[in-house]
Amino acid sequence: MKRPRVLIVGGGFGGLYAARALRDEPVDVTLVDRTNHHLFQPLLYQVATATLAPSDIAAPIRWLLRHQRNATVLLAGARAVHPSRRALLLDDGRELPYDYLIVATGARHSYFGHDDWEARAPGLKSLEDALEIRRRFLLAFEKAEATDDAAEREAYLTFVIIGGGPTGVELAGMLPTIARFALPKDFRRIDPAKARIILLEGGPRVLPSFPDDLSSHAAVDLAALGVEVRTHAMVTSVGDGFLEVGGARIEARSIFWAAGNAASPLGASLGVPVDRTGRVIVNADLSVPGHPEIFVAGDLAVLMTNGVPVPAVAPAAIQSGRTAARNIARLLRGEAAMSFRYRNKGDLATIGRYKAVAVIAGRHLSGNFAWWTWLFVHILYLAGFRSRLSVLLEWAYSFFTYQRGARLITWNTRAI
Amino acid sequence: MKRPRVLIVGGGFGGLYAARALRDEPVDVTLVDRTNHHLFQPLLYQVATATLAPSDIAAPIRWLLRHQRNATVLLAGARAVHPSRRALLLDDGRELPYDYLIVATGARHSYFGHDDWEARAPGLKSLEDALEIRRRFLLAFEKAEATDDAAEREAYLTFVIIGGGPTGVELAGMLPTIARFALPKDFRRIDPAKARIILLEGGPRVLPSFPDDLSSHAAVDLAALGVEVRTHAMVTSVGDGFLEVGGARIEARSIFWAAGNAASPLGASLGVPVDRTGRVIVNADLSVPGHPEIFVAGDLAVLMTNGVPVPAVAPAAIQSGRTAARNIARLLRGEAAMSFRYRNKGDLATIGRYKAVAVIAGRHLSGNFAWWTWLFVHILYLAGFRSRLSVLLEWAYSFFTYQRGARLITWNTRAI
Repeated sequence: MKRPRVLIVGGGFGGLYAARALRDEPVDVTLVDRTNHHLFQPLLYQVATATLAPSDIAAPIRWLLRHQRNATVLLAGARAVHPSRRALLLDDGRELPYDYLIVATGARHSYFGHDDWEARAPGLKSLEDALEIRRRFLLAFEKAEATDDAAEREAYLTFVIIGGGPTGVELAGMLPTIARFALPKDFRRIDPAKARIILLEGGPRVLPSFPDDLSSHAAVDLAALGVEVRTHAMVTSVGDGFLEVGGARIEARSIFWAAGNAASPLGASLGVPVDRTGRVIVNADLSVPGHPEIFVAGDLAVLMTNGVPVPAVAPAAIQSGRTAARNIARLLRGEAAMSFRYRNKGDLATIGRYKAVAVIAGRHLSGNFAWWTWLFVHILYLAGFRSRLSVLLEWAYSFFTYQRGARLITWNTRAI
Repeated sequence: MKRPRVLIVGGGFGGLYAARALRDEPVDVTLVDRTNHHLFQPLLYQVATATLAPSDIAAPIRWLLRHQRNATVLLAGARAVHPSRRALLLDDGRELPYDYLIVATGARHSYFGHDDWEARAPGLKSLEDALEIRRRFLLAFEKAEATDDAAEREAYLTFVIIGGGPTGVELAGMLPTIARFALPKDFRRIDPAKARIILLEGGPRVLPSFPDDLSSHAAVDLAALGVEVRTHAMVTSVGDGFLEVGGARIEARSIFWAAGNAASPLGASLGVPVDRTGRVIVNADLSVPGHPEIFVAGDLAVLMTNGVPVPAVAPAAIQSGRTAARNIARLLRGEAAMSFRYRNKGDLATIGRYKAVAVIAGRHLSGNFAWWTWLFVHILYLAGFRSRLSVLLEWAYSFFTYQRGARLITWNTRAI
């Protein structure tokens, strides 16, 4: 008898952990992703700021699933789902049939209708995004060093981050740290420590998803690093080498976007209701209305638990991917699907190299202690992800072994 | 009094070591390179085969020279030298004046008049080259896994390397190692260990610059790894997904080029005699005829010592860069320039992961012992290059520090 085919689209946290949760089930799993690697997205800002190398935070999906004999990995872009004939249409025109489907293709940036802003203010979602931001960040210092024009030099040394959520705060906190401590001795004509870093937030405070007191802590820590934090700052225009905020013009050659998300277009192809940003409004068990065989996990789904929205963070993606997979296993055994329940293990955001804010088990942490907590949590998670007891040992070991993390195809999705 | 301006073009081994040799001299040094990083080229094939990450073998030039206060680094492409008015023309139209000039821009690939072959059979000189080869190598397995056509699958699993010198041999030796030991568990439909790797050499033996017996050792070691070595193999055509060798057609989706070098065009702009491959025929002191203020170092120069040609290897580039720099210092002190003398410390080439051939102090080494020698020598050199006592410790340490090696701008020179 042929085993049921479970098709998973997306190799992020939702898709990868869904595949793993099906390890011992009597199904054939196929995971489709348009890149060959899974990304440890919480550390992506460290690649963008040249602190970690791409291979430190990414690993080939097929390597991560190499011991799972019921799983096949396919490198391909997905264009649309055809629920009526239970098939996934790929970019190359082929169709993959499925018995059960988990869609976990996440989100991209949203420029709120200003698509021309994207090239001028790149966002941070993929490894390519991080390398593009790194390239622009490093090139800006090179251009500042090379120019004789004082105004131009100042514009090259002005960095603007739009959006005061965790991504914007972590990026803004890391830039002055690198500029002040890593770069100064490298240049002769400019002082990288004088780089101006501006963080723009449209709302009344940074880290709006955190409690008030931690937003205040974050703002104070950012200011101590030299970041100019501006709240209630509405960007009205992003031009070539400048932007306008509430009518005032800022000359800045480097502008980065961390302001808005739009769900992957694959969600809309399901033909079920989506919210304003394109996220799929799922049933309590993560299936979609009218299709008990289709589940949506991660950032693509409007996740709720006890009527409260769940934040778009890695643990929520992991947990929802697992729930979707387990519900498929339950349906196959003739059991009823379970409702998704988010177990909040805490929220963390770093500010520079030695400060952070965190909410863990209801307690508000800030400063150095929160940072050490952050480091501990991430080493734990990264270690599991790279499947070794110790990330540190693996790094040392990598010279004598096959450094598998380096097997990344970073240029196959789009030309830069 | 204004100090003499020494301009160095090229941040490879020749240019970097020339700059360092001028550290304590009363001159102002400017080093110009079109990338922001120095590359440890002897390990480039390990990046191409996904064994090492780019940041393991590359470091920003300005970071390497950060403590040398008389040195300035400029990220810029050089178009031509104007010896008559002592100026270097940059790609952006600017001119840099100099009192002394060291040209060390090395070589690129030569396709012997078949420039259309370049896109079909990329070579291995830069970090971009290595990442392009890595991308094609890894994608070939993905495509083979995805196709249902047996002939196409075979073509995707056929890898041809053209050129049996050290680069070709090291690349050919590494590919089966990765295919056999690193990849097999990752795939479900194909067996990467069955990949066919063909090394084509136009002459009678591989490693023609090594003694006869070591060429034989290398050929035996390559065969043991499963590499098909074909000598006297003249490539007559490189097409899209195939090539022709002496009339016979080989279907291969991945073809890599390690066959010929052409000197950087900057040499020809000097207006002095060059050889067939464009290398500058320098005086014994490495200056060019008629211009005692212009020196050429590294692969761009026809280096001779006691009338014998010097091979185009990293130690020769380092030594010639130093000689050029020291001769400038001698001229400034009113002393006569010295003749270049190459001190051959040995030749090494690895075959796969645990074999190598070497000539050291006239002794011929092969097998495991040569490989351990190779490892020892390269750890020593890499350590000096990364300026730490131990590369291994640095890799472990990198998580807690700024991993400086990762600050690479890999996309600014050309779009892939």
